Amino acid sequence: MDFDGIPELTKAINLSLSQFFDAEAGYLHSVGEELYPVADALGHFLLDSGKRLRPLFAAIGYLGTGSALTPEVIRAAASLELVHVCALIHDDVMDDSDTRRGAPSIHKQFEALHTEKALHGSAPQFGVAASILMGDLALIWAAKALHEAGIPSNQLLKTLPIYDQMRVELMAGQYLDVYEQALASESVERSLKVATYKSGRYSIERPLHFGAALSATCEPVHLESYSHYGLPLGQAFQLRDDVIGVFGDPGVTGKPAGDDLREGKRTVLAALTLNKSTNLQRSEFNKLFGRKDLTDGDISTLRQIIIDTGALADLEKIIADKTAEALTAIETSQIDKAAASMLNTMAIAATQRSS
Amino acid sequence: MDFDGIPELTKAINLSLSQFFDAEAGYLHSVGEELYPVADALGHFLLDSGKRLRPLFAAIGYLGTGSALTPEVIRAAASLELVHVCALIHDDVMDDSDTRRGAPSIHKQFEALHTEKALHGSAPQFGVAASILMGDLALIWAAKALHEAGIPSNQLLKTLPIYDQMRVELMAGQYLDVYEQALASESVERSLKVATYKSGRYSIERPLHFGAALSATCEPVHLESYSHYGLPLGQAFQLRDDVIGVFGDPGVTGKPAGDDLREGKRTVLAALTLNKSTNLQRSEFNKLFGRKDLTDGDISTLRQIIIDTGALADLEKIIADKTAEALTAIETSQIDKAAASMLNTMAIAATQRSS
Repeated sequence: MDFDGIPELTKAINLSLSQFFDAEAGYLHSVGEELYPVADALGHFLLDSGKRLRPLFAAIGYLGTGSALTPEVIRAAASLELVHVCALIHDDVMDDSDTRRGAPSIHKQFEALHTEKALHGSAPQFGVAASILMGDLALIWAAKALHEAGIPSNQLLKTLPIYDQMRVELMAGQYLDVYEQALASESVERSLKVATYKSGRYSIERPLHFGAALSATCEPVHLESYSHYGLPLGQAFQLRDDVIGVFGDPGVTGKPAGDDLREGKRTVLAALTLNKSTNLQRSEFNKLFGRKDLTDGDISTLRQIIIDTGALADLEKIIADKTAEALTAIETSQIDKAAASMLNTMAIAATQRSS
Repeated sequence: MDFDGIPELTKAINLSLSQFFDAEAGYLHSVGEELYPVADALGHFLLDSGKRLRPLFAAIGYLGTGSALTPEVIRAAASLELVHVCALIHDDVMDDSDTRRGAPSIHKQFEALHTEKALHGSAPQFGVAASILMGDLALIWAAKALHEAGIPSNQLLKTLPIYDQMRVELMAGQYLDVYEQALASESVERSLKVATYKSGRYSIERPLHFGAALSATCEPVHLESYSHYGLPLGQAFQLRDDVIGVFGDPGVTGKPAGDDLREGKRTVLAALTLNKSTNLQRSEFNKLFGRKDLTDGDISTLRQIIIDTGALADLEKIIADKTAEALTAIETSQIDKAAASMLNTMAIAATQRSS
């Protein structure tokens, strides 16, 4: 298989996801028409959008070991998107978020289905139950897609420990995040720890390791290089998310403006702001931060404080430094040249994006 | 490894779960003390009680193919308990159940932790978030425990498709169950379909298949025999659950008396009652069924209607018939004699239990 680059790779990943989904939807349909809405909603969630970041890193991680991509590796790499679908669906229930990718979140969709069909019991409770199960199903589908990808046994068995580690880290990181919100922590160090566990490893380093493990030509030096690239870049990626959560354009993000401000999300950006603020700025920030009823004016006020304290500039500096660290790590590595060039492109895409 | 029988096997399964848990708790502790309560709660949930039904069926399924048990197979069989832990934790969130096995359910425990530590935000929301993540983690641990069990590659790779199928069926069945509640269906046929998907396959047939697939001496005839035994027995098992949900003793079940009545659970027992009731019985039943504020007197009234209509007697007849079907299937099978005798014991235990 030959790829010009990332767009081609993304297309192949999408095709693989679509084929896997069709087979699974077929099974759900065979159980009964009660499951049509489940298949339908999961299909749209999986296939309508998504940057395929983790599958891309997995595929490039494989390429970087000097092996040529195969359809089997594409399928295995694509399976990581389904882990992410689980994380997103469950995340939206946990945060009680109404929207995702510009559409109602899954629990809201099933709440609406309950109301529309005039079903018995509580509509929100039904929405929560359906979305918990659909997240679980996505996590199981992910494993099934990996198992069925056609990877040689030897390589598959080498990949499973990394796969398991990645998933345990993801859930530990998610809990740290939830707990940090509840603590209303103002510590930059703690927020960075959450960012590292939640996204630093899971989004970039582990997918690269996962892809490398799929390859028969993987050497320890590849895994090391991927850690040197993936860890700082993963943090930068998460910090870019923090910026987008505050300054993002709803038309691009598919989330309401200032979503993280309304949610009172304890990001590194929020911690930096509180650490650098005057007493006046601090009291104004705390008065508004985390209120569900923020007006456009309130959001502007909070954004201005974040800028005025210098927190935004500091964060952009950290993002730039960590991205540079990642780029240097790849430059000085033994990663295959074509893959290294793709990792350069990905580093820019992951940290200079607007959604 | 030599086992006298089921108590010995249960002990070996418990030991395996305990060793796996200790290693994983060690990892969670290494992430940070924020995760101590997560490890603690999961440890108690996993290790304090549980009948180990699915691990036992898996181990016996392996034995039935004529191979001798190994510590590796015990570990792989035990991993199924963690799938079940995920199902139970998520089930309690979905049903908003306050108790499980006589203790507060996981989401209630973390709701209490939030209150106790005077954390920010909504305590119930925190409880829900923590328990979603802990269910996810249990599902991931299950796979990790299986992958690490030490099963020869060849057998592990033959087992994974059955494992995946079992988990997809579980989630499909759980959704059918949730949807059936919301439909407030009165159809015996539909309730039986839910029982089949939710528990019929997942609790007995698939664990037996899973265990058989772990064995190098597994033949198609073993899988067939296990289906002939496991499907009717799985239904009988679920129907016994229905009886316990209405008539169970709280001191034994660890759930409040008449829990399914308060929840308005659309079981085969409820459907039979409504199908066989007079207009008077029906209106009295519907007036009380599903009310959160049922008194002891109300519960007695509902129980009496279930008895008077003959629904309970009918259900007991179905349970007895299906159990007999399962026992005959094993008697006429080529399953190893010692394992067949254990399956006889298990059939009685699964259908004549009181919790």
